[in-house]
Parts: sequence; C-alpha cells; structure tokens
Amino acid sequence: MQEMATNAALNVPPGYRKAEARFERLYKLGDATRVLEWDNSAVMPSGGSEARSEQLATLRVIHHEMMTAPENADLLGAAESERAALDPWQRANLAEMRREWAHASAVPPDLVEAYSKALTVCEMRWRAARPANDFKGLLPDLRRVLGLVRQVAQAKAAKLGLSPYDALLDEWEPGGRAAQIDVLFDDLASFLPGFIEAAIAHQARLPAPLPIRGPFPVDQQLALAKRLMATVGFDFDHGRLDTSAHPFCGGVPDDVRITTRWNEADFTTGLMGVLHETGHAMYERGLPQAWRYQPVGRARGMSIHESQSLMVEMQASRSPQFVRWLAGEAAAAFGGSGPAWAPDNFLRIYHRVKRGLIRVDADEATYPCHVILRYRLERAMIAGELDLGDLPGAWNDGMKALVGIVPPDDRDGCLQDIHWPSGAWGYFPTYTLGAMTAAQFFAAATDADPTIPDALGRGDFRPLMTWLRREVHGRAASLPTPDLVKAATGRTLDPAFFKAHLKRRYLES
Amino acid sequence: MQEMATNAALNVPPGYRKAEARFERLYKLGDATRVLEWDNSAVMPSGGSEARSEQLATLRVIHHEMMTAPENADLLGAAESERAALDPWQRANLAEMRREWAHASAVPPDLVEAYSKALTVCEMRWRAARPANDFKGLLPDLRRVLGLVRQVAQAKAAKLGLSPYDALLDEWEPGGRAAQIDVLFDDLASFLPGFIEAAIAHQARLPAPLPIRGPFPVDQQLALAKRLMATVGFDFDHGRLDTSAHPFCGGVPDDVRITTRWNEADFTTGLMGVLHETGHAMYERGLPQAWRYQPVGRARGMSIHESQSLMVEMQASRSPQFVRWLAGEAAAAFGGSGPAWAPDNFLRIYHRVKRGLIRVDADEATYPCHVILRYRLERAMIAGELDLGDLPGAWNDGMKALVGIVPPDDRDGCLQDIHWPSGAWGYFPTYTLGAMTAAQFFAAATDADPTIPDALGRGDFRPLMTWLRREVHGRAASLPTPDLVKAATGRTLDPAFFKAHLKRRYLES
Repeated sequence: MQEMATNAALNVPPGYRKAEARFERLYKLGDATRVLEWDNSAVMPSGGSEARSEQLATLRVIHHEMMTAPENADLLGAAESERAALDPWQRANLAEMRREWAHASAVPPDLVEAYSKALTVCEMRWRAARPANDFKGLLPDLRRVLGLVRQVAQAKAAKLGLSPYDALLDEWEPGGRAAQIDVLFDDLASFLPGFIEAAIAHQARLPAPLPIRGPFPVDQQLALAKRLMATVGFDFDHGRLDTSAHPFCGGVPDDVRITTRWNEADFTTGLMGVLHETGHAMYERGLPQAWRYQPVGRARGMSIHESQSLMVEMQASRSPQFVRWLAGEAAAAFGGSGPAWAPDNFLRIYHRVKRGLIRVDADEATYPCHVILRYRLERAMIAGELDLGDLPGAWNDGMKALVGIVPPDDRDGCLQDIHWPSGAWGYFPTYTLGAMTAAQFFAAATDADPTIPDALGRGDFRPLMTWLRREVHGRAASLPTPDLVKAATGRTLDPAFFKAHLKRRYLES
Repeated sequence: MQEMATNAALNVPPGYRKAEARFERLYKLGDATRVLEWDNSAVMPSGGSEARSEQLATLRVIHHEMMTAPENADLLGAAESERAALDPWQRANLAEMRREWAHASAVPPDLVEAYSKALTVCEMRWRAARPANDFKGLLPDLRRVLGLVRQVAQAKAAKLGLSPYDALLDEWEPGGRAAQIDVLFDDLASFLPGFIEAAIAHQARLPAPLPIRGPFPVDQQLALAKRLMATVGFDFDHGRLDTSAHPFCGGVPDDVRITTRWNEADFTTGLMGVLHETGHAMYERGLPQAWRYQPVGRARGMSIHESQSLMVEMQASRSPQFVRWLAGEAAAAFGGSGPAWAPDNFLRIYHRVKRGLIRVDADEATYPCHVILRYRLERAMIAGELDLGDLPGAWNDGMKALVGIVPPDDRDGCLQDIHWPSGAWGYFPTYTLGAMTAAQFFAAATDADPTIPDALGRGDFRPLMTWLRREVHGRAASLPTPDLVKAATGRTLDPAFFKAHLKRRYLES
C-alpha cells in the first residue's frame, strides 16, 4: 500500500484519491470483522457468543455509518467528474464504490435495524425448527423476514434501477440478472433429468464402488489434508486450516482461514471438502496485492468465487488423473491396501451419481437441479407469486420434476437450508453459475496449456494455477463478470462446456 | 445489556445516559480490538502480520476519533451537571469516562501519529539489539521514543493537573502517584537486601532441591494445566488456553484467552505461569456483568490486576498447603516417583530465593528489587535527570545496590525488557504494588475465612474465590484503588503484609 500511495500522490486526481482513502478504511474495518467472524465459528468458546455479537454488531454499524455518511454522495460525484483522467482499474474501482454505496444507502436505517433483528430471531428459530421438522413453527418468523426482504429489495431496486429480485442478486453477484440466468438454467433444466437417468444407467453397468473401511484417525486425515492443500499451492504462512461445524473459507487475502469437519469413518468426503475450500482460498490469495483495500481488488462475485472452489474440487481434484494419484497418496497415508484402495475404485467413489434429497450432499450432476428448484421458488417469493404457506408443496413438486424424488418431510425438504431464514434470497443461483463457469475455465485452461491434466496426474497444480492466477485471480473485480469470463475463455458463459464435461465424465468413462 | 438499558430508561438522567451509550460503543469496539490482538499473538500465521497491523491501526484510529470527537466535552459536561441524580456506581463511571477522555484528548493527533510510528520502529530495533547486545545501536531510536514520551507526558500533565511521570503512571494505574510509591518502595528497598541475604542463608541450611527429570510431553503438561485452571475456577465455556511466545491474558471478560509456552524439560515453571495468567483471567471473569461495556465495569488498574495473578500464583499456589497437594497431582499426571517428587522437594523448588539478572525469571523476594531499580531509573528519565547514554552504568550501579550482582553485558542488563522500547514508562511499579496488594488481600481473606489455607491443601479454591469475587472482582472500578484496598482489607496499602509474608515463607519454614 505504501507504494500505491506514492504512485497515487504523483498522478491521481484528488477527488478520486479521497474516495480511495475512504474505501481503504472501510475495507480494513471490514477485514477486522471477517477475522472475528472466523474466530466465532472456529475457535470461540460457546460462552463468548453474546459478547461477540455485540462486537460484530458494533463494527457493522460503524461500517454502515461510514459507508452512508452524508458527504459520500458528493465524494463519489467529485471522483466521477474526474473519470476521464482515470485508468481502467481506477474506473472499475469507482464503479464498484458507487455500487457498494448504493446498496448500503438504499435502505433506510430503521429498515436495516428491523431486518437485522428479524434475521437473528428467524435463524435461531430455524435451528430448532429443522430438526423438529416444524415448518409451521418457522412460518411466522419466515414470513416476517420475507416481508422485510421484499421491502429491502424494493428500496434497492428503486436506487439501482433494477427489478427487486435482480437488486437482491446484485449484492452477491454484481451485474447478475435473472433474465440471463433464466436462459442458462432453462437449458440445464431441460438437459439434466435425462442426463442423470443416463448416467445412473451407465454406472449400473460398472462394478459398484467398494467401501473403504476405517476408522481413519483425525490426525492422519489432517496430515494428508495439509499435504493436499500444499499441493494445490496453499501457503501456510498466509493461512490456516481449522475445524468448524460448517466448513467455510474466511479471513482476509493475506491470512486466509479455511475450516473443515472430520469424520473418522470416512475420509473421502472430508478431503474433497478441504480441496473445495482451498480453491476459495487460492482465489483470495491470488488477488492483486496493489489493490488490497479497494473494491476492485477483491473477489469479483460469488459465481466466480464458487467457480474457483469447484475448479479445484470438481474439475481438477475429481479429474481421473488426479483421483488416480490421490488413491496412491491416501493408501500411503492410511496404510491401506487391497481392491478398495485401487485407483479405479476411488474413481467409482468420486464419480458416483445418485439422486438425493440434500443439496449439500449432492454430486455435481444432480446439484444444479437442487439449485434451479430454489432459484425458481425464491424468484416467485420475491415477486409475490408464491405464498410461504405453499412452499412445502411447491418444493416437493419441484423436487419430483427436477431430481425425480420427493422428500418424506420438510426437514429433508424446504427446511434444509439456512439461506432463506438468514435472508439470503438471491444467493442460490451463484452455486450453479459457478459450476458452469468452472467447466468453461477448465476447458480454456487445458486448451491454452495441454499439460494441465497430466500434471494433475502427478499431483502438480502449478500449470493450472499459473493460468488461474493470470486469467482469473489477478483480474479481481476489474471487469464485469461476463467480460471476465470472455477475457479468460474467449466467449461469454455457455452451458455447453458444463454439459460436455458431465457427458465426458459420467457417460464416456 | 438489555436489562440495564431498560432500567436506564426508567430513571437515569438523559445526559448521563447519552454518555453511557457513547462509551458502550467505545468498549465494544475496544473488545473487538482485544480479540484481534489475541489472534495476532496466539494463532495468526506470520504472513498475516502486515494485514493485521492495518486492521488494528484502523480500529484504534476509529476508537481515538470517537473518543476525542469535539462534542464529547459537552457530552461529559452535561452528564456531570446531573451528578446529584446519579448513584455511586454511575458517579464512578462518569469519573472514569472523564479520565479516559482526558488521556485521549490531551495529546494532539500529530504527536499521536509520530509517537506510534516511533514505537513501531523502536520495538523492531530492540528485537534485534537485545540478542546482539547492542545498546548503542538502539540508542538513537530509544532517544526518539523517550523524547516523544516526554512530550506526551507533558501534554497529559497539563490536562490532568499532574506531574509528567504521574500522568504516564495514571494510564496504567489510575490515581497512582509517585510520591506514594516512593514511600512504599523506599521501605521495601531498605528491607529487601538484608532479607534476601537472610533467606539465602536460611535455605543453605536445608537440603538442596533435587531436579525433577523429564522429558514431560506437552500434551501431558497441557492436560494437567487445564485441570489446575479448572481447580482455580476457570470456565472453559468462557475462555481458552493457547500457546504464544510470551504468555499473557487477553480477550474479553466473557471470553478470556490466556496463553503459555511449554518446556518439555521442566514443567514446574510453566504450570506456575498458567496459574498466574489464570489469576488475571478470574479477575476479568468476575467483573460485574451489568456493567460490561462501561469504564466502571472493567479492571480497576494494573496493580489490582497484578494482585490477582500474584494472588493465585504466589499467595495461593505457592502456599505450602497447595504445593504439597500439587506434588501429588504432578506425580500422578507424569507417573513420577522417588525423592524428587516428594512434597518437601516441591516446596524447596517453589520457594527458592536466588539472586539473578533477569526480572521475568526472578523469585518473589528478589523481584521487587528489579522493579524498584526500573522505577527509579524511569522517573529520572522522564524528569530529564538521566540521559539515556548513561543508562547502562546507572543500571549496573542499581543492580549492585538492590540485587547484589552486576550483569556482564546489556543483553542481560538494561536491554532485557520491551517496556521502554514500546513506550511503557510508568508500567513497572504496578508489578510490585500488585505483589504487596496480593499479600494484604490474602491476609484479609484468611482472617475473614480461616478455612482458606486448608482448602487450598485439598486443591479447593472456592473459599478464596468467594472472598475475591465479593471483595475485589465484583467491585471492578467503582472505587479508587486505595479505597478498594481499604474496603477489602480495612486499611490502605501497607508493605508490612508483604514483608510478613516473605518472612513467614522464607525464614520461618
């Protein structure tokens, strides 16, 4: 930052420089918050939670006040009047500042407060309602949250000139629009049910996977997981691996904190979970150092973020080449031998397609069906076309049509995700946009460097990471998502890559 | 806090209530900072340090700006005009607000910045200069820091109506005054050299302590340390024990984070270190819940804080009763047997008096000599009566007079502590004020409840903690330190208790 500040002093117009200084402070404050959130989930003793809520709420309120301070409109206006003198990154930065400011200042303070309180109550209610299979018990609080979300959406829509759903989506996926997602998801929705049937029929002709019998002590799993992280390129001088109830990637770009959970009966799922979070971590670490504390220097959005975790987990780590290499590593780490430890058996485990009720347990072929269901339902809710009272029925109908099975109860149906009880309407589509983007990136990367797959077969991620660093990570938020995809791959997002990937992996091997 | 807010709304005058709200936010922000500082020392990977510095600096600047906002003078004035309507805790709270505000607003922003930068440089220089025994190399940076500290002291002195040294002292030891410390320390300084000689002669007539031979694996030491912490009353739902280069007690009252370091060759020192930090932690945890985010609800000052760590470590855990019990626990934990594991041998280890060069390794009889040396030197530096170039000579003269030995070099002499390079003039006396206070508290506690020593002999801290909770912890900062000592013990601080304790432990057993 020292160097940038010096450069800035030389040739950066004063209004823009002032806006940068304001956002630099906001990002440093936000980073402090992110470390405390990691602590909360990874190491905090249970009795600290009330105090931590107070700390986090205080930092968030200060952040919101700083972001929405009355002088900021003039500050941004002054910087925008200097636009002609700015370089492309500075212009992109300014556009991101305007977007963040608009999101924050669109919502009146009393609505922010009412919404935030309603979320706390509803999340807590959900934690009890899900295991109790009590959708009716959750309904009043969820109605209240949805009512407030729709008000928030309305307020943001007016400020941003978007539809209410797009205004919500824009927070997670800047520039994302439902009209484009509809086209992509309709394409997938017409492809996937038939594909899943074909994939299941195809694998029925192969030997069934043999279970790999444990137990696998946590310390051995941890040692192997850390070795795999290092293989991907994770730098333990700039990050940590810890344990938490729900795996996530947190912290800040120079100190990335990922978490996992361990199952001593099965190491295969946990390892892939670690590799998934490592993909997120590599993206954070690869963001450009010179723009650390500016909006343009941060992750482009959730679909690109998810593309990076799925790139490492689904495209690279479940590639036949890597899985075969991994089988040898695992056998050595756990002292395994016999047919269950054979590379072909690992492939059958890691390439299993199976209809299931739970999104987070789904394989990569059925996962998009879970997402498309939620996307369609949440759009209808925001549009006021689906009453929450009718959600369980609509959910089950959608599961039948898209996945081909129906949950026996709401616990494994519409109650399974925390997203809506925590107010995150507009988040779900980013998972599948990420999966499609990952397939397109991987195709472009292997076109550009055909050595990538064989290198993965030796546990060598360097060729792939070199491409990702240059084409994706290093670009941060300097381009809108469609332009970033086009710059990296030569074309805008096209489901054909994802479909070709699925066919190759699940029908042709 | 919910409950307090409700009470507050009923009968608290509006100006005072507004001041409380302001400080509540400041304390929550400060708590966030404290958790990040713990992370920094306990779990952060090395590559995160630059980002962390930015986060911490940002939180501290925001804190300083909020504390010194122009409207705060009027805010405090308005609250003080309602003084007659306030209860004693509210009045004490208001006085603490005024004090904190005065400290923060006394120093002009450009001096704050110059000082903070000079400290960063000087601390880093010290880390290299100490192992290199290079006092001359440190001198220019240390001169610069001292020059700025004297300016800070001058600015605070003017605002607080104190002498410059008292103004620095007041930050660590609110209300502490050098004139009173002089009297106490002169008394000790005339007693200790002769006492140390007598104690060494006394122990020469006893058998020499037998070394307890290891190694002692870290996981076994950790298990025993946690058991001892629980014995003292540490609640692991509200705190953690971790590892760091320099042991400390951090975190916040509802989530206290203590740290230690491990030596596999010797468990005896590490265990006492954990017990010391546990004493600090018990104080934090015992502060009154209803005043969590107000100045009056926090620790009274560093001498009382140190009295609580020394209460647990020196008064209770090195009492003959507890040491005998501990010997049995340690033998069981490590599978030890034979004469080295006998309770009498543990007593000889834990009651050893030995002249040494290093403050942090000193026993409780020689420790005050190290402190008095530093106190006298730092007073002279702030008064401009001792030039830093003359520090090594003055140090060695003082060591000769007070401890009876002279360091062979500055590494084990005036370069050994980080306090001055990090700007902490005025901190040292609190260690020995704490030791004296602990002795007086323990005497009062055992007068009030004569079962305390025997309970310690069964590993039972509850009678002692009951007294401490009521007489010390629960009072937080509601009384000035001398009044707190008087309320708890019936008299103001009197070195007679500490001297009697030393004589009993080191001459009469």
